[in-house]
Amino acid sequence: MNGNNTWRDRLYVIIFQTDTVAGRRFDKTLLLIILASLVIVILDSIDEVHQNYANVLAYIEWGFTIIFLGEYLLRLYCSPKPLRYAFSFYGLVDLLAIVPGILALYYSDAQYLLIIRVIRMLRIFRVLKLGPYLKQAHYLLDALRGSKQKILVFLLSVCTLVTVFGTLMYVVEGPEHGFTSIPKGIYWAIVTLTTVGYGDIVPRTVLGQVISSLVMITGYSIIAVPTGIFTAELATAMRGGQQQHDCPVCKKSSHEQEASFCSRCGNALFRKME
Amino acid sequence: MNGNNTWRDRLYVIIFQTDTVAGRRFDKTLLLIILASLVIVILDSIDEVHQNYANVLAYIEWGFTIIFLGEYLLRLYCSPKPLRYAFSFYGLVDLLAIVPGILALYYSDAQYLLIIRVIRMLRIFRVLKLGPYLKQAHYLLDALRGSKQKILVFLLSVCTLVTVFGTLMYVVEGPEHGFTSIPKGIYWAIVTLTTVGYGDIVPRTVLGQVISSLVMITGYSIIAVPTGIFTAELATAMRGGQQQHDCPVCKKSSHEQEASFCSRCGNALFRKME
Amino acid sequence: MNGNNTWRDRLYVIIFQTDTVAGRRFDKTLLLIILASLVIVILDSIDEVHQNYANVLAYIEWGFTIIFLGEYLLRLYCSPKPLRYAFSFYGLVDLLAIVPGILALYYSDAQYLLIIRVIRMLRIFRVLKLGPYLKQAHYLLDALRGSKQKILVFLLSVCTLVTVFGTLMYVVEGPEHGFTSIPKGIYWAIVTLTTVGYGDIVPRTVLGQVISSLVMITGYSIIAVPTGIFTAELATAMRGGQQQHDCPVCKKSSHEQEASFCSRCGNALFRKME
Amino acid sequence: MNGNNTWRDRLYVIIFQTDTVAGRRFDKTLLLIILASLVIVILDSIDEVHQNYANVLAYIEWGFTIIFLGEYLLRLYCSPKPLRYAFSFYGLVDLLAIVPGILALYYSDAQYLLIIRVIRMLRIFRVLKLGPYLKQAHYLLDALRGSKQKILVFLLSVCTLVTVFGTLMYVVEGPEHGFTSIPKGIYWAIVTLTTVGYGDIVPRTVLGQVISSLVMITGYSIIAVPTGIFTAELATAMRGGQQQHDCPVCKKSSHEQEASFCSRCGNALFRKME
Repeated sequence: MNGNNTWRDRLYVIIFQTDTVAGRRFDKTLLLIILASLVIVILDSIDEVHQNYANVLAYIEWGFTIIFLGEYLLRLYCSPKPLRYAFSFYGLVDLLAIVPGILALYYSDAQYLLIIRVIRMLRIFRVLKLGPYLKQAHYLLDALRGSKQKILVFLLSVCTLVTVFGTLMYVVEGPEHGFTSIPKGIYWAIVTLTTVGYGDIVPRTVLGQVISSLVMITGYSIIAVPTGIFTAELATAMRGGQQQHDCPVCKKSSHEQEASFCSRCGNALFRKME
Repeated sequence: MNGNNTWRDRLYVIIFQTDTVAGRRFDKTLLLIILASLVIVILDSIDEVHQNYANVLAYIEWGFTIIFLGEYLLRLYCSPKPLRYAFSFYGLVDLLAIVPGILALYYSDAQYLLIIRVIRMLRIFRVLKLGPYLKQAHYLLDALRGSKQKILVFLLSVCTLVTVFGTLMYVVEGPEHGFTSIPKGIYWAIVTLTTVGYGDIVPRTVLGQVISSLVMITGYSIIAVPTGIFTAELATAMRGGQQQHDCPVCKKSSHEQEASFCSRCGNALFRKME
Repeated sequence: MNGNNTWRDRLYVIIFQTDTVAGRRFDKTLLLIILASLVIVILDSIDEVHQNYANVLAYIEWGFTIIFLGEYLLRLYCSPKPLRYAFSFYGLVDLLAIVPGILALYYSDAQYLLIIRVIRMLRIFRVLKLGPYLKQAHYLLDALRGSKQKILVFLLSVCTLVTVFGTLMYVVEGPEHGFTSIPKGIYWAIVTLTTVGYGDIVPRTVLGQVISSLVMITGYSIIAVPTGIFTAELATAMRGGQQQHDCPVCKKSSHEQEASFCSRCGNALFRKME
Repeated sequence: MNGNNTWRDRLYVIIFQTDTVAGRRFDKTLLLIILASLVIVILDSIDEVHQNYANVLAYIEWGFTIIFLGEYLLRLYCSPKPLRYAFSFYGLVDLLAIVPGILALYYSDAQYLLIIRVIRMLRIFRVLKLGPYLKQAHYLLDALRGSKQKILVFLLSVCTLVTVFGTLMYVVEGPEHGFTSIPKGIYWAIVTLTTVGYGDIVPRTVLGQVISSLVMITGYSIIAVPTGIFTAELATAMRGGQQQHDCPVCKKSSHEQEASFCSRCGNALFRKME
């Protein structure tokens, strides 16, 4: 079965890898098919299109589901460790791209679950060769990780603010002005604090407008906080990629990656064992 | 009464401290109860829920009030200095969490004051061990303190801008387009400058729309000012200030972060080991 | 007339200076009167208040105008160089605070010009002792001056964008959807690009909604440009307050204000003439 | 024909260059004419103006088209390499400024294409002498180039987010609340995520309002990402990179900005003058 093996190996290289011409071509084609299947789902949701082409679109969707099913089985077949693939992140996403198509036979609403195929678009990182970039740009993640706790404190403060302001407005404005309950008040506070401002619920009383003004100015100002935190962390992370090691003489704490001597005092950074 | 004392001491450790298993469990349970009591207040404000479960919810709210009352008395009992606790920040907040529940017996609107229990959620910092983090991240506060006066100038400018633009729009648009008074105009100016844009009051005349465009572009641009101030202060606070190290020759004590030589006498700041 | 002179000198110190107790008290009182006169103008614009208290408010406004007139004459009298004061910035503002009150006798609308008294509130910088702070914080102005040309380019780009998009939407949506002319389209483009989004004019056609989406994402993204420019300039300006002078040996270009020797190479920054 | 040649040369200097008085005057006049022609197009779109002055405006537009045609022919005539000018960026823009005026004879809608004359306003950079500035400020472009891939990742994430949230809202809210199709849902998601918030389509169900709140807080927070990226890149570009200076001992050629000693061999980078 050596010939069979080689066949599987070649399939594996084409389907799972991107460094051969055939592999890249396969991934590009796959991306286009995924995009096309998304477009079909989106088109099908438009009433006029649905009324005229419901059957055609249903057939096309079935076609895509069969293609993805075939691709999934092929991947299972040619993968050296099928189970490991099946339970990997990409394996589960590939499965999720098929299931709704089959469910849609029984529940017509299930077809909208097909939109999760959008997650498959993550493969675009591989095709656009953004993968190596993403790995190199670990400092974007460093920045996010470094500011995680600050962001948490920020989100907790925002939650507290909208709860308090939402309740206040419910008491001040009352149901006759659209603030029918505290959750509605909280919804209004979020709409206002984030400066979205739909205008579906607006304050009508003078006191309510004074409180709103406060909420708006707060929302307008505190946007500076996450922006500032993220920017400062990012700047630090970018300056980083540096060696963290205290110089034994002057205590300078970060050095060039390849440094042997401290660039401030000229002393050896590491003691030489004799 | 030594046994009694030990009993009180153990209660004190459980209720006031978080470094034992029992203490942490107590704080977590308390947080959950506070959250539950907030959910009840919020649910009770929804009309449908209120009509069907008003009595049940009232009993539950009473239950929470009694629990918090009990907890407050226990804290007073086991605290070594009860008065100091009673007048501390947390002590007053704990009291405020009970009072509205009792007031609600006489004034039905008072129940919404229960929402101030949200302040008790501040204990979450202790449970999530964010406390030490907050202390360490003193530079976030440094940044805010450093930019306090700049923020004040910024807020004064915003107030002046909205007053002038609000009056202008009141004169230009007049009551027939919703600008019924100068305060209304100021409210509109705040809604527009902060880019919230409800759309409940909009300019109808050509001149009014020209002025609005000006206000919008101003609002869109000056958001850069608080963001820039906060970010720059934060970056400065994070980079830390100056090097504190006595020059071995002239004793100048603070130097640029990266200085190798004293900028006053020109001598090397650090001895080179040979 | 030496006594008269002393009297004038003492008045001058009280009215024009803030470093004596009496001077500060005078400025504080003046600020309160200005604030009160603004509140009266604002109150008078509210319909209910105007109908009931029109006469009272008119008398009070007259009172304020007389007070400010008296103050203006006093300033002219005790100033050592009256003409120089009369044509200084503050002198003109003080005059502008009186004129509309007199004009209001003949034209009732002129009273809203009284709002320019808000400019007199600039004196608050002197009272809150923000003045020295403002002088010290010259780097905020440095940052603005440094980014002036970049901001100009940014504003020109925004103007071009809104003109093009406004015309496009006028052609695509047409008068039946509220885009009655190109200026209206430009107004819509400004409302959308600045993320204000009143909702008084919204796209109804599919193509219009696609173009709007583009405008929104553009507006959402390019806010980063002025923020980034201002922040980077501010950070540079804050790091500044430094001596700009190339070290003759290592070319390091900025040094501590008091530096005699370069902190990088230890050489004298300035050649000693012998 | 030497005289003719000199005449052409002088014309060339006036029309194509800006460093003579006549050249600058020509460019300024041209800019004013372009602005005036834009104003005419904009005015003509206003219904009242069009009904009363349609003929006058048509004549004026014709006048501008003839002026621009003459200018174009003159440029072709006096340019030393007419073809190179005709296919240069400015040459094509100059041609595009004439074509719609002629097309408008046959298709009345074509006149709005005249708005592309706004591109001719780019010449303003030459007149305001912003050109050299733009060249000098290469670091603004450096910052944009440096953050290109990050911005791409950011835009892809935003697209994915609005697709998923748009579909979700279409399923949750349904056509009866304005979410008539998935594209409509995506349009709503863009309006909400960018914090524009027209309010033409708003969530009515409780679940829809919860999802919206999520979208709003996401949109409010992730604005920090492009701002942070751009600011950090700009700060890096402005601070400049590394010191370019050969170490006198080991010839290592680039060092940390503030290095005094070579981090590879520990020798002083700069000789100390004694």
